[in-house]
Amino acid sequence: MGLEHVLNAGSVAVVGASKVPTKRGYQTIRTLLDEGYEGIIYPVNPKEKSIMGLHCFPSVSEIPEDVDVALIATPARTVPAVLEDCGKRGVKGAVILATGFGETGAEGKALENKVLEKAWQNQIRLIGPNTSGMINLKANLNLVGLKDTPKGNIALLTQSGNMALTLITEAKLQSRKGFTYYVGVGNEADIRFHEYLEFFQQDPDTRAILMYVEGMREGRKFLQQAYKTTETKPIILLKSGRSSTGKQSAGSHTGALAGMSRVAKGAFERAGIIVIENSDELFPAAETLSSLPPIKNSKIAILADGGGHATIAADTLTDLGVDIPELEEKTKRKLRAILPGGAAVRNPVDVAGGTDDNPAIFADCANIILSDPRVGGLLVVGLFGGYGIRFAASLAMMEEDAAHQMGKMVKSRNKPIVVHSLYNSEKPHSLDLLRYYGVPVYGSLDVACKCMGVLAQYGRYLKSYHAVSNFVFNWGAKAKPEGRKLIDNALGEGRLVLLESEAKQLFKLHGAPVTGDVLAKTADAAADAAGQMQGNVALKISSPDILHKSDANGVILNLSNKKQIKKAFTEIMRNAKAYRADARIEGVLVCPMVEKGVEVIIGTKIDDQFGPVIMYGLGGVLVEIIKDVTFRVLPITRRTAQKMIEETKSSPILNGVRGEAPYDKKALVNLLMACSEIIEAYPQIHELDLNPVIVHHQGLSIVDARILLKPEKESQPAGPTA
Amino acid sequence: MGLEHVLNAGSVAVVGASKVPTKRGYQTIRTLLDEGYEGIIYPVNPKEKSIMGLHCFPSVSEIPEDVDVALIATPARTVPAVLEDCGKRGVKGAVILATGFGETGAEGKALENKVLEKAWQNQIRLIGPNTSGMINLKANLNLVGLKDTPKGNIALLTQSGNMALTLITEAKLQSRKGFTYYVGVGNEADIRFHEYLEFFQQDPDTRAILMYVEGMREGRKFLQQAYKTTETKPIILLKSGRSSTGKQSAGSHTGALAGMSRVAKGAFERAGIIVIENSDELFPAAETLSSLPPIKNSKIAILADGGGHATIAADTLTDLGVDIPELEEKTKRKLRAILPGGAAVRNPVDVAGGTDDNPAIFADCANIILSDPRVGGLLVVGLFGGYGIRFAASLAMMEEDAAHQMGKMVKSRNKPIVVHSLYNSEKPHSLDLLRYYGVPVYGSLDVACKCMGVLAQYGRYLKSYHAVSNFVFNWGAKAKPEGRKLIDNALGEGRLVLLESEAKQLFKLHGAPVTGDVLAKTADAAADAAGQMQGNVALKISSPDILHKSDANGVILNLSNKKQIKKAFTEIMRNAKAYRADARIEGVLVCPMVEKGVEVIIGTKIDDQFGPVIMYGLGGVLVEIIKDVTFRVLPITRRTAQKMIEETKSSPILNGVRGEAPYDKKALVNLLMACSEIIEAYPQIHELDLNPVIVHHQGLSIVDARILLKPEKESQPAGPTA
Repeated sequence: MGLEHVLNAGSVAVVGASKVPTKRGYQTIRTLLDEGYEGIIYPVNPKEKSIMGLHCFPSVSEIPEDVDVALIATPARTVPAVLEDCGKRGVKGAVILATGFGETGAEGKALENKVLEKAWQNQIRLIGPNTSGMINLKANLNLVGLKDTPKGNIALLTQSGNMALTLITEAKLQSRKGFTYYVGVGNEADIRFHEYLEFFQQDPDTRAILMYVEGMREGRKFLQQAYKTTETKPIILLKSGRSSTGKQSAGSHTGALAGMSRVAKGAFERAGIIVIENSDELFPAAETLSSLPPIKNSKIAILADGGGHATIAADTLTDLGVDIPELEEKTKRKLRAILPGGAAVRNPVDVAGGTDDNPAIFADCANIILSDPRVGGLLVVGLFGGYGIRFAASLAMMEEDAAHQMGKMVKSRNKPIVVHSLYNSEKPHSLDLLRYYGVPVYGSLDVACKCMGVLAQYGRYLKSYHAVSNFVFNWGAKAKPEGRKLIDNALGEGRLVLLESEAKQLFKLHGAPVTGDVLAKTADAAADAAGQMQGNVALKISSPDILHKSDANGVILNLSNKKQIKKAFTEIMRNAKAYRADARIEGVLVCPMVEKGVEVIIGTKIDDQFGPVIMYGLGGVLVEIIKDVTFRVLPITRRTAQKMIEETKSSPILNGVRGEAPYDKKALVNLLMACSEIIEAYPQIHELDLNPVIVHHQGLSIVDARILLKPEKESQPAGPTA
Repeated sequence: MGLEHVLNAGSVAVVGASKVPTKRGYQTIRTLLDEGYEGIIYPVNPKEKSIMGLHCFPSVSEIPEDVDVALIATPARTVPAVLEDCGKRGVKGAVILATGFGETGAEGKALENKVLEKAWQNQIRLIGPNTSGMINLKANLNLVGLKDTPKGNIALLTQSGNMALTLITEAKLQSRKGFTYYVGVGNEADIRFHEYLEFFQQDPDTRAILMYVEGMREGRKFLQQAYKTTETKPIILLKSGRSSTGKQSAGSHTGALAGMSRVAKGAFERAGIIVIENSDELFPAAETLSSLPPIKNSKIAILADGGGHATIAADTLTDLGVDIPELEEKTKRKLRAILPGGAAVRNPVDVAGGTDDNPAIFADCANIILSDPRVGGLLVVGLFGGYGIRFAASLAMMEEDAAHQMGKMVKSRNKPIVVHSLYNSEKPHSLDLLRYYGVPVYGSLDVACKCMGVLAQYGRYLKSYHAVSNFVFNWGAKAKPEGRKLIDNALGEGRLVLLESEAKQLFKLHGAPVTGDVLAKTADAAADAAGQMQGNVALKISSPDILHKSDANGVILNLSNKKQIKKAFTEIMRNAKAYRADARIEGVLVCPMVEKGVEVIIGTKIDDQFGPVIMYGLGGVLVEIIKDVTFRVLPITRRTAQKMIEETKSSPILNGVRGEAPYDKKALVNLLMACSEIIEAYPQIHELDLNPVIVHHQGLSIVDARILLKPEKESQPAGPTA
């Protein structure tokens, strides 16, 4: 069921309605009345006849009409019975404020499950529990009791009441912006993040979605939805719980798993989400993206009235990946014509006193700069807004003129302007005018730079990165019958691990190059097999009971003749028996020695938030220590595979260093794609580990492959499907 | 001459005094009069009889008494003559406001030099040129004309007028703090950063020094001074010009070189300076360090009234290297006794509504938490200060009570408290009270965390890192006569490069292990020399004209018998002639092949701000790409050498990986120390390059050594001495 009747409810029952002004059951009704909620309010309390002039009902079921939403302000233990009662009156959604559920441990979790069961039985969707509530600002449907929340075009979705309060307070004090909806997701017991997202995507008044997340229950569905949403509406998100203490804190707060943070950040960004790490930048980023067009070419100009701010801004923007291009000669000429001799007319432009007695020149400069085709946006830094305060009151009007002009310029040129002003806290009218036109103004230089940074980031995403992947698995579609048989066979034998030979066989089935290994049951057979191979060989024990072959001294490398091979065979067999007397021995795998190349590793795992993810990195001792690896949520596209390879710091090694020929990156891309395909084809696979893979100048070799399976009962798709 | 008479001037001549209110020559006199400057003011202007009731003098030389300081508000070209005139009246210092000097290019630089010459001739110290001026707030000596700068205990030293304005505005609006002095260093033509620093160190009223720097003229002297200053007073510094655009911008702003930023940051931190990278955090860090005791154990507790803020704070503090320890059982027990059941009593502590009707409990919690010996400081995050606003006005008094108690607690327990408050911008009285006791309060969670971070950082520095090195060279002290001869000999031959054999000889003289190489002039001699060595050998061309031996095919490795050696000798000689027919050939160096080990590189260079610096990193292809290297300003101590080795990301390799024995880090420390000693011993050395060095399980081998010399005329110490 959609959320229409919940978030746009036409009637509300307040369960636990009260006459005591400090109670939520009072505050909510007061706020609904004061703010002019357009629907019907039903106070519910068996002990009261009326509250604030409204008739009070002893229970929800005794309300004479059907009710859309119940705000439940009673203690946790009472909630199942209240829901039961709500069911009788056709209630479609409930907002459960109480704490004492999943976030407190096993007992609370059991109560939460009971509540869920009641909700499902009665077809009631739940917001919370453990939530501050929700507000629909368009209908004045305020179930939080937080007054004066400003209206606007941002939807706010958070997992912390305090963060909501923080963001709403910032909106009020720092901007002219406001909200369409606020939802505190609480424990996310029923309605999940992605469902709210889908609703906001459809909402015609919402221009951007602002999120604070501690942990998600269904990360993959969220990504699937976010991927669709960000094509038309920006999502700005801060995910806390990076540190171990932060994770713990998040766990006790909403009971959610905080997940692998490196995976999460990569996954969010791939879905086009603007991930914010500094909480000061969260609201400003949303303000900016809900008001201004994204920057198409990632290039901006800086307009300053002093060297210090210009220098710091250039540093900060460079760190944010924004370019500060040289201006065209024509642009410089025009600037020179209106600025004094000491002015810097390259980028950053420094007016060097040229605005001291006429700050309206800021608008003229802005106009010249934004007409330069190399420039995608403008950051104004310094005193603008303070000339009337600092120098002479008469200058304030010129600043207001400039503000008007710059505001209109944003629309006419469709290029964003962001303003940093040292005088922001003095609230001059010119800065308010800028905000009227949607130009964000901040007193923090870092925050102003970040606003430019997110416009550039979203612009880059829209330009190059959409339509790549939608995080949807087509489970089993590309499975090969032989592959299925291999896995079923292992599971049938009670094995949760494939033999190396089986794992390599699976890769071969999916088009990946594997060495032509031969399983030999006798020393003579091993010697014969080696005779058919070019160059030296390695022997490896093959046993379902020996997972780590080296630990069992089950691998001998670099054998060049029959005598060595036979001796090695015997030795390996003896070692295997010594390691584990009852091990089932399939034989010894004879593998051609692989020529030299660059060592890489590839692995897959199941992340608790996002399901199957893939890891790639350069192998070897150094990288083991430096941990230069990268993650993606599966499935991946060829383009993503290329990006994974390129974004590891050590990737230049694959281009060939010190005069070497380049290594075969295309083969590596193919292998990553094969891994993605295999995970999608066989949902029974739990983990996959290729370590090492040797990349050659032409082609590559999978030296070792390990595949772990899920226990039978889990072998149905664990991750959600589309 | 000290700066006493300049910064604490008892009389001021204002050259370019004016009756026009928009002129600096008016504003300065106005401000001096309005603010009650304690000394004597002499307006100087040949066209006026009096200004604002003060007698006006036609020139400085016609003032009847000696004058301490002249504020020169006339254009750049007039300055030399004004200084000449000032000299006649015994002026001790001049503040030169004009732009148009070194920052504009060669012509301006020439004028700046002329000004400097006049100043030296007349024994006048200069602030600027290209400065906004200076303020001594203790004497109401305000030469900037910026009114209402708050008084306090922070000295402000910046290279940008706008950044000064920013910081002063923040002090006024965000804190109860203020300044002892403000100096705009401008082009730093005469008085340098380190001289101001020395002055502020002596000033009894200054508790912390706040700096904004774009580039320095004498970085090493600054470090030497900073190292002494930070032992008793914190220095908080933001250095801009990290990015290439930022560097350019800084260059056109003050004409200073921005230097190597990685070197600068490392050097500053080694001198105990708190380096800030985010401009929003600059003033708050200074406010905090000028008010609160540093945190001794780097461990803090978080006290929150909501999960979101606690989680974000835990993440941010962890990123800042601050620990969030488990509290003692006793502490948890006491907290449990006063907080509701749902509260989290581990760290972060979440009161979970326990303060809703009694925010005074914050102080009780703070008291319990700070009595825990594991806790070095407390960060309070959330709504504190806003209970009276949000819930009921009667709660405001309880908040004020709590503020009083927490403020006193800071003194009595000598442990810092920092407060984040969502209601900061509403300016409730309780938050003002906290500030009265020196507790910083910020509306930004990130900034509040950073305040804790700098207290922990300064505490760590004071505890473990002082008394290590003072950045002072004792040039030549440890030179060996034989070493001097080697270098003089090369310079005598007109060579600016030592032969490999000479460079290795130099290292040997200073106790570093070098391979027992032998220079052979004939093939037979080479073969004989190899016969005396253990294992295989390498042959390398030895020629003052062939710097890069491999490029000339002048190296052949891994030779095992006489025949091979003789053949290789002939081949190298032929290659050398082919590479450069007129090359002077000394012979061929026979070197024992070095056993395997970990490859590292060591180099030294001359940094334009700090003089000699040393670089260390692991060698090999991977690290070449990852650039995992570290820098220090020379000379270094053994402790620093150890730290350099440990702080490279790949350093665990030296501990032995995959079951290997550890490598000889002690030998590596010795080699770094030898490099430091050699640079100190022979000021003629320009660059030194050991690449590679192979570190063994026992000892190490310098495989190749290259030393470049400075041209004769520069061979005197280039960096300043103590």
